[in-house]
Amino acid sequence: MKKLVSNITSRDVDFSKWYTDVVREANLVAYSNVKGSMIICPYGYAIWENMQKLLDKEFKKSGHENVQMPMFIPESLLNVEKNHVKGFAPEVAWVTYGGNEKLEERMCVRPTSETLFCEYYKNIIKSYRDLPKLYNQWCTIVRWEKTTRPFLRSREILWQEGHTMHATSEDARNETLRILKIYEDFQRNILALPVIVGKKTESEKFAGAEETYTLEAMMYDGVALQNGTSHYFGDHFAKAFGIQFLDESNNLQTPYQTSWGVTTRMIGAIIMTHGDDHGLVLPPNIAPIKVIFVPINNDDKVKETISKIANELTEDITYKVDNSDKTPGFKFAEAEVKGIPIRIEVGLRDLETNEVTLVRRDTLEKIKVKIDEVVEKIPVLLKEIQNNLYNRAMERRDSKIFDVNSYDEMKELIKDKTGFVKVNWCGDAACEEKIKDDTGYKSRCIIEGEEPTGKCIICNKDAKCRIYVGKQY
Amino acid sequence: MKKLVSNITSRDVDFSKWYTDVVREANLVAYSNVKGSMIICPYGYAIWENMQKLLDKEFKKSGHENVQMPMFIPESLLNVEKNHVKGFAPEVAWVTYGGNEKLEERMCVRPTSETLFCEYYKNIIKSYRDLPKLYNQWCTIVRWEKTTRPFLRSREILWQEGHTMHATSEDARNETLRILKIYEDFQRNILALPVIVGKKTESEKFAGAEETYTLEAMMYDGVALQNGTSHYFGDHFAKAFGIQFLDESNNLQTPYQTSWGVTTRMIGAIIMTHGDDHGLVLPPNIAPIKVIFVPINNDDKVKETISKIANELTEDITYKVDNSDKTPGFKFAEAEVKGIPIRIEVGLRDLETNEVTLVRRDTLEKIKVKIDEVVEKIPVLLKEIQNNLYNRAMERRDSKIFDVNSYDEMKELIKDKTGFVKVNWCGDAACEEKIKDDTGYKSRCIIEGEEPTGKCIICNKDAKCRIYVGKQY
Repeated sequence: MKKLVSNITSRDVDFSKWYTDVVREANLVAYSNVKGSMIICPYGYAIWENMQKLLDKEFKKSGHENVQMPMFIPESLLNVEKNHVKGFAPEVAWVTYGGNEKLEERMCVRPTSETLFCEYYKNIIKSYRDLPKLYNQWCTIVRWEKTTRPFLRSREILWQEGHTMHATSEDARNETLRILKIYEDFQRNILALPVIVGKKTESEKFAGAEETYTLEAMMYDGVALQNGTSHYFGDHFAKAFGIQFLDESNNLQTPYQTSWGVTTRMIGAIIMTHGDDHGLVLPPNIAPIKVIFVPINNDDKVKETISKIANELTEDITYKVDNSDKTPGFKFAEAEVKGIPIRIEVGLRDLETNEVTLVRRDTLEKIKVKIDEVVEKIPVLLKEIQNNLYNRAMERRDSKIFDVNSYDEMKELIKDKTGFVKVNWCGDAACEEKIKDDTGYKSRCIIEGEEPTGKCIICNKDAKCRIYVGKQY
Repeated sequence: MKKLVSNITSRDVDFSKWYTDVVREANLVAYSNVKGSMIICPYGYAIWENMQKLLDKEFKKSGHENVQMPMFIPESLLNVEKNHVKGFAPEVAWVTYGGNEKLEERMCVRPTSETLFCEYYKNIIKSYRDLPKLYNQWCTIVRWEKTTRPFLRSREILWQEGHTMHATSEDARNETLRILKIYEDFQRNILALPVIVGKKTESEKFAGAEETYTLEAMMYDGVALQNGTSHYFGDHFAKAFGIQFLDESNNLQTPYQTSWGVTTRMIGAIIMTHGDDHGLVLPPNIAPIKVIFVPINNDDKVKETISKIANELTEDITYKVDNSDKTPGFKFAEAEVKGIPIRIEVGLRDLETNEVTLVRRDTLEKIKVKIDEVVEKIPVLLKEIQNNLYNRAMERRDSKIFDVNSYDEMKELIKDKTGFVKVNWCGDAACEEKIKDDTGYKSRCIIEGEEPTGKCIICNKDAKCRIYVGKQY
């Protein structure tokens, strides 16, 4: 047990090393010889599968359908929307040969699929009856990042990308927000992440979008992780691609578009929000294994007790019995590293008083429970753990949100603190950039509903709004 | 209705054109400007999702776990196993640039992932305790095909690839056959395909495999479609990659390996086995929509009847109500093109006698059923349709399997017939190749359990076995 835990650096000593230690020890990811690409191991992939299953259900419930677009984008197609190509061309992988033949036109591996969807929509949208089109795809995209970290920044990213077309601007805006709400609910209720949801500034928008909404999660160290975005495109792309439809009065109109996506990065957010020095801590609602049984003694009575409890659990309580020949101590450590929400230790001594020991992963608290009360206790405890993780993260987040009145105050504050800083801002990109260049704090999002409390902290002109600024992964 | 159906060429007039017509009219696939790549539309993708769900469940039930490997393979890694690289290098897509920088070593987009899995296994297999490793991944692969057809031959292929490692040759052989059985059961029971299962000859084996098992489906026109393979690798790859483990007696051993895969090609097999001149015919067990309700009159009583029936259906009976403003005739044709197993027509005239009309997609037979018997009737009818499709395909298949005693007899036979021809074969690749070069009939698989009935039909030497030969997609 000591050995396993000692493989993990303390998160307060070196958070970055702690992260890679946890990712490795919990067997989420393995490094490959393919530079910048990771192998997602079974346990890591099972978390992603749970995320897919739950989100996909919400997408379908709200009328979305899955499709699969080509993986490659010819260079000329990527070039159609100017802002878009400017944003992506420097970071794509180019295929130049098919077998032994040089391609007439090189193609990139999709970094995102707006252009492919637009080309498709141009062919299938003719009339108002064809709208809305609510398509999504689960796939892998490629962005040629220089420095990579598992789940956070990688050359290959597993994600979903929704691309929708609507008859009116209002419909498209509603879709943008509807998806944002699905993401928010999922991240709060399932991943226990108290995300801050808001609009990106002009300079932080997605390449080609008119408005970008973001979900900003705060990690244990006070650094932000952009954990999903939903974009309103207006009719930029539709115009660039010449997509038009006949409305009910037989007039040609241009449709309005959205796109939205979340990635395996959400796994990184879970690790860095909930994990501790023992390893991963998984919110029960996303954990592939919710309960692990550890037999303390190799004894029939122990086995029978475990079977009895396990058989009575409802189907949604996924469990595992650790029957390996490792020591109980080693099994405890392994269950902790993997962040399994509840560990049930079943040993002969406890059985004398008809009890077993439940250990909560979030608090490591040990609870003796009568055998005939365990089945009832488990769902209650799982819910408690889920809530506790959320509340704990929320409290930490709130303790790291700082309100400043001046740039000097901000610079003084961030000397020994890291978090989100609320500042008044004039709306000028130059001021935003100065903060970033001086301090490394980038604007996260505009704080909607809050009026400016003073002048822009940089130029001292009238502030238009308040924004969060923060360091980011 | 006439218009829709007339868009489909008769399958007896031009089977190839019939196929592309059905694929297009049923909205399974759309063509993209990306040469050789297809767009899988919502209806086509829903079929694939059903396939994934059912197979994934079987894989997991038998102890397999999903992972995700990199999409790229560095050239040097692809080169490690000689037969493997020879088989794949001519048909891979090469990435040579990342952003604006030329890569030091070019990488191909995976055409299959044996090499990636081997490299991973080399790192994680140390002891007999680490075996078996039963990993699978769902992903897209790329093979630079010159001529492509939707689902059958495409530059991008959606598939699953299992890669497993075992302590003994026997374990690996068992795994190869266990998966073959999962594939066979799935294709017979779910896809209603009476596949022929057997072993490939030496020259038709997978590049690098010791043994390749195949599932050969016969299409309506008598042409074969290889519809899945399961390979036993022996220790070729493990040796090439230096994978070793310590056995229970602390001796270094080389593990044994398998790989296996099925693709979206299975959708092509369904189309070309069950489809007819009205379009697609989907086996109920794989159909995204099992029942479609078509209201004949715009009337409250009609609507109420539909709701009443629909609400009483069990969850597994997926259904749709076609409330569009098209004519009933158009809706019928659309339901037929999409191959929906049961259509329920609800009209005022039938309601007078408390009846609705059920139409079977497989036979187009119309059945009047009392309203209060419909809910009970549907699952029975779905089962009947499923069985009928299987039996019909089986009968057709058997009518196109021919047994010949001489090469002349074969050449005479295939002048006006297409099917699988059973021939005696000496085992020499030259004889196999002569048949292929002369007639276009490639060996499909060795007929296990059948003894030769004469001499090799080419060289007249003693025959070692009997094989099926046939044309292929």
